[in-house]
Amino acid sequence: MLQDFERSKPEEKDALNNEIKHLRSQLIGQQQLLREKKLPVLVLIEGWSAAGKGSLIKELISEIDPRFYNVVSPAIIPESESRYPFLYPYATAIPENGKLIFLDSGWMESAVRKKLKLEISKEEYRRRVRAVNEFERQLRDGGYLILKIFLHIDQDEQQERLRALSESADTEWRVTGDDLWQHREYKHFKKSYDEFMEETNDVIPWHILDGKRKKVAVRDALKLLVHRIGKALEKGRYIGEPFEEKFPLVKMPKLSEVDLSVSLTDEEYRKSLKKLQKRLSELHNILYRKKIPVILCYEGWDAAGKGGNIRRVAYPLDPRGFDVHPIASPEPHELNRQFLWRFWTRLPRSGHICIFDRTWYGRVMVERLEGFCTEKDWQRAYNEINEFERQLTDWGAVLLKFWIHIDQDTQLARFTERQNTPEKQWKITDEDWRNREKWPQYEVAVNDMLKKTCTENAPWYIIESNDKKYARIKALKIIVKALEKACEKRF
Amino acid sequence: MLQDFERSKPEEKDALNNEIKHLRSQLIGQQQLLREKKLPVLVLIEGWSAAGKGSLIKELISEIDPRFYNVVSPAIIPESESRYPFLYPYATAIPENGKLIFLDSGWMESAVRKKLKLEISKEEYRRRVRAVNEFERQLRDGGYLILKIFLHIDQDEQQERLRALSESADTEWRVTGDDLWQHREYKHFKKSYDEFMEETNDVIPWHILDGKRKKVAVRDALKLLVHRIGKALEKGRYIGEPFEEKFPLVKMPKLSEVDLSVSLTDEEYRKSLKKLQKRLSELHNILYRKKIPVILCYEGWDAAGKGGNIRRVAYPLDPRGFDVHPIASPEPHELNRQFLWRFWTRLPRSGHICIFDRTWYGRVMVERLEGFCTEKDWQRAYNEINEFERQLTDWGAVLLKFWIHIDQDTQLARFTERQNTPEKQWKITDEDWRNREKWPQYEVAVNDMLKKTCTENAPWYIIESNDKKYARIKALKIIVKALEKACEKRF
Repeated sequence: MLQDFERSKPEEKDALNNEIKHLRSQLIGQQQLLREKKLPVLVLIEGWSAAGKGSLIKELISEIDPRFYNVVSPAIIPESESRYPFLYPYATAIPENGKLIFLDSGWMESAVRKKLKLEISKEEYRRRVRAVNEFERQLRDGGYLILKIFLHIDQDEQQERLRALSESADTEWRVTGDDLWQHREYKHFKKSYDEFMEETNDVIPWHILDGKRKKVAVRDALKLLVHRIGKALEKGRYIGEPFEEKFPLVKMPKLSEVDLSVSLTDEEYRKSLKKLQKRLSELHNILYRKKIPVILCYEGWDAAGKGGNIRRVAYPLDPRGFDVHPIASPEPHELNRQFLWRFWTRLPRSGHICIFDRTWYGRVMVERLEGFCTEKDWQRAYNEINEFERQLTDWGAVLLKFWIHIDQDTQLARFTERQNTPEKQWKITDEDWRNREKWPQYEVAVNDMLKKTCTENAPWYIIESNDKKYARIKALKIIVKALEKACEKRF
Repeated sequence: MLQDFERSKPEEKDALNNEIKHLRSQLIGQQQLLREKKLPVLVLIEGWSAAGKGSLIKELISEIDPRFYNVVSPAIIPESESRYPFLYPYATAIPENGKLIFLDSGWMESAVRKKLKLEISKEEYRRRVRAVNEFERQLRDGGYLILKIFLHIDQDEQQERLRALSESADTEWRVTGDDLWQHREYKHFKKSYDEFMEETNDVIPWHILDGKRKKVAVRDALKLLVHRIGKALEKGRYIGEPFEEKFPLVKMPKLSEVDLSVSLTDEEYRKSLKKLQKRLSELHNILYRKKIPVILCYEGWDAAGKGGNIRRVAYPLDPRGFDVHPIASPEPHELNRQFLWRFWTRLPRSGHICIFDRTWYGRVMVERLEGFCTEKDWQRAYNEINEFERQLTDWGAVLLKFWIHIDQDTQLARFTERQNTPEKQWKITDEDWRNREKWPQYEVAVNDMLKKTCTENAPWYIIESNDKKYARIKALKIIVKALEKACEKRF
């Protein structure tokens, strides 16, 4: 793409200024429509060092009401220091509905630079390219407008600019060792940028702008924004189509096939619990040092015993190294973003354990059944979730998912007990009773979910919990085994 | 306090276990009451290295429903790397209403350690002690229950524990250079801990527990929790009394005394604007390198021209180095915390500029007039805000506050113009008209605010904005002057 790039022709200054002025006023006019139509816009500005990304952004925002946009400049953190997945800085920075975000360098610069610095393997680079395509498509399908701009200058121009910056005491500090290295390795970078753009051009296309002619670049960027925002406003919020599952899946039984009669004696329970908790505590130490992130997902019927199960897992852990995230219905600022955002922001740092008490699977259960999202949204979600989870396990996370399972009679007995025990009454609400009436619909949804999202890297485990003791030991055993495997693998 | 500490007597193990069991079940019983009564609880656990803070927290949380608590372990960041105010990690971590937070070391460890490491001056240490007392009192007055525990062991016990940790391959990494240094300097630390506790014992008292007898410490901590939570539940949420202002104030005119006839010609405006923006751009570079944080606060009448004023300030700034925070009514998760929380979380990193489009002063204007908080709450707020702002300027921030001022006729003209201009209609709502009817009440509130919160370190400036050009230039001049002064002062 950069190979074929042709420099724009010189243009008359006054005409350019007029065009820019006109485009700016159009953009201002679009502001409140964006808000009304709840359209979120993400503008990614990548490009060469000293190409003028900062100045371009400055020109783009100069007349926009500051209430409508944000500029985000994610630092590129060396791989050895990064405690989060590759996409974390970007996935947590996505705009709310109705807002614009300008990203001053993003996933492209991060991926390419780390590849050229040999901080990541070729294989890891390939995984990241895939993750980028997934990420962009998920946002697009979730109604985001994404614009990707690459600001291009040639090697001579870069040299001149770096020299000019270095010569002034005020701006000298802006030229970093990385910039000089990029300049020396211009050809390598050019090839790599090009490859990256080729590989990420299908979902959301790139726009290469001529960084040498600043005014032309501003005009072209504004044109792009106004045109694409205009089109998006016209069409209304895009809802992506569901698409085919391509993940290696593990076959799951249907819920109705699960034998719930399994149980443990008190004696067996106490002995196993002690042993497993002791081992888990040791493993927590090891994975902390090896910086292995662990994500445990709990889903299950109301009153299935999630809370008690989680407590038995949490008890032996060092409280400084784990978090439990109870997931309730989303708050307004969460609802105003792509549905996985509120989980991205809750991810553990590497070496930490986090336990989700209910998860992103709400999308294909309660949101599906209660109509909180469109049919296309929840149908697409199976694949989106599989992608998200693969991004997490690619990062190195141990990801285990538990369906805490009971039958309807057991639930009734537990509901009744809660109702009749004053200190447990808060645990039972009218909503629980209403959900209970929808058991058959939920069972269909759960079976779909287990079938479509039990991947090899992030498997589901059905935990029989008519006998809570049995359930706790089973979950602990699975966790201990998975952590032992992970701790062995990594030095 | 540590000087007079007497070790607890040995106690019978079974009796202790029973007591602990009983206290735990009481704590479980209190969980849902906390939630119902919306009481937030912050438990600070400080103490010696290897005193067992982590284990103590583990025991305290072992039976609590994970939905009700969080454990926070703020890292103690070396002063040279910290880009935020001293209290930032704690102020941003306060619990929501109805939740418990356990802080595994906090402001005490941070202040004392940095003092002994000579990272901060004695004077800075004194400021931090004051900030801690202010912070604790503000939380208490805002309805928070705070419990402060110090886990004590003597030097011999510490030696034994550090040795035990060092001897096992699994735990050796837990002993840091800082721990060994503390052990060598035990006496110095003891004196400094003692001083800190003496100095911060009046608002919220300390509780020293015997770290050597683990079970006793668990029992005593549980007892403290259950007792204090019980009392707080009984009494209901505490609302602090307003108290006397002690800040050096700058005298402000009343709004009615302000001459709004000032104006600029287009020619004067253009010339000054260009000059000031150029200078501001240079200053932004310097303050970025000198790591000076800048906070600009905009308040003013509806349609006074805040947005346009902010845009003229933002235009020359590097978009990577500033943020604009439009402040609307609080979201539920913000409303569920002390009122300054949503501003703490929006503070700029040092070297960055942030502009608040409306601010924490909503407390003493709209919240006062609309009854969104109690009278005691807003009356207390003047002093709370002065303290908050002093904490920011003590950190090194340049903090400027602008009241963008117009008269009623000008507002009416602008409202009418907005109403009649299609692309401006979104800017005018019924609420604006309703607010306009309350002009006299707002004027009283604004005069009170200007009088009570115009401190030397964080002054108010009334910006006459009947002529927007005049207003923009005046604000820019004030900003440039303040930044020049700040950039000169610091090398």
